[in-house]
Amino acid sequence: MAMFMDVHHGMAGITAEQLKAAHEADLAAQGEEGVEFQQAWADPDSGTVYCLSSAPTREAVQRVHERTGHPADEVHPVPLHV
Amino acid sequence: MAMFMDVHHGMAGITAEQLKAAHEADLAAQGEEGVEFQQAWADPDSGTVYCLSSAPTREAVQRVHERTGHPADEVHPVPLHV
Repeated sequence: MAMFMDVHHGMAGITAEQLKAAHEADLAAQGEEGVEFQQAWADPDSGTVYCLSSAPTREAVQRVHERTGHPADEVHPVPLHV
Repeated sequence: MAMFMDVHHGMAGITAEQLKAAHEADLAAQGEEGVEFQQAWADPDSGTVYCLSSAPTREAVQRVHERTGHPADEVHPVPLHV
């Protein structure tokens, strides 16, 4: 499985509860696509959310996010990590 | 300490060795600023690198990256994480 970092913009004011709810929705929906969301980080001031996942393809990551109502603005494969 | 996600653009073609060397340079330089770089991910195709750190301030993160020759294009506080 490859690793992906996806980025959501326009999430200004997101709360801890909203981030948790969105992440849990992704976890509940990911199985069908073979995606495993791992961590997510949010900057409520700039409205940016980053999600780290392992997944078979970039499209699979996006399909899960679309299904849970928050499509990503960018999905980058991140084959390198330290 | 707060958490930060910083983003570098224009790194197309970065290799695993270059990412490792850059991360190790940051680790060697971070002490003076009270920064702890934790993980980094790279997309050699789009030339994007993401670094996760805990640090006293956004400016401290940037000072370490500047000292090691790779200033970040964006440094976002990410107070929320799951």
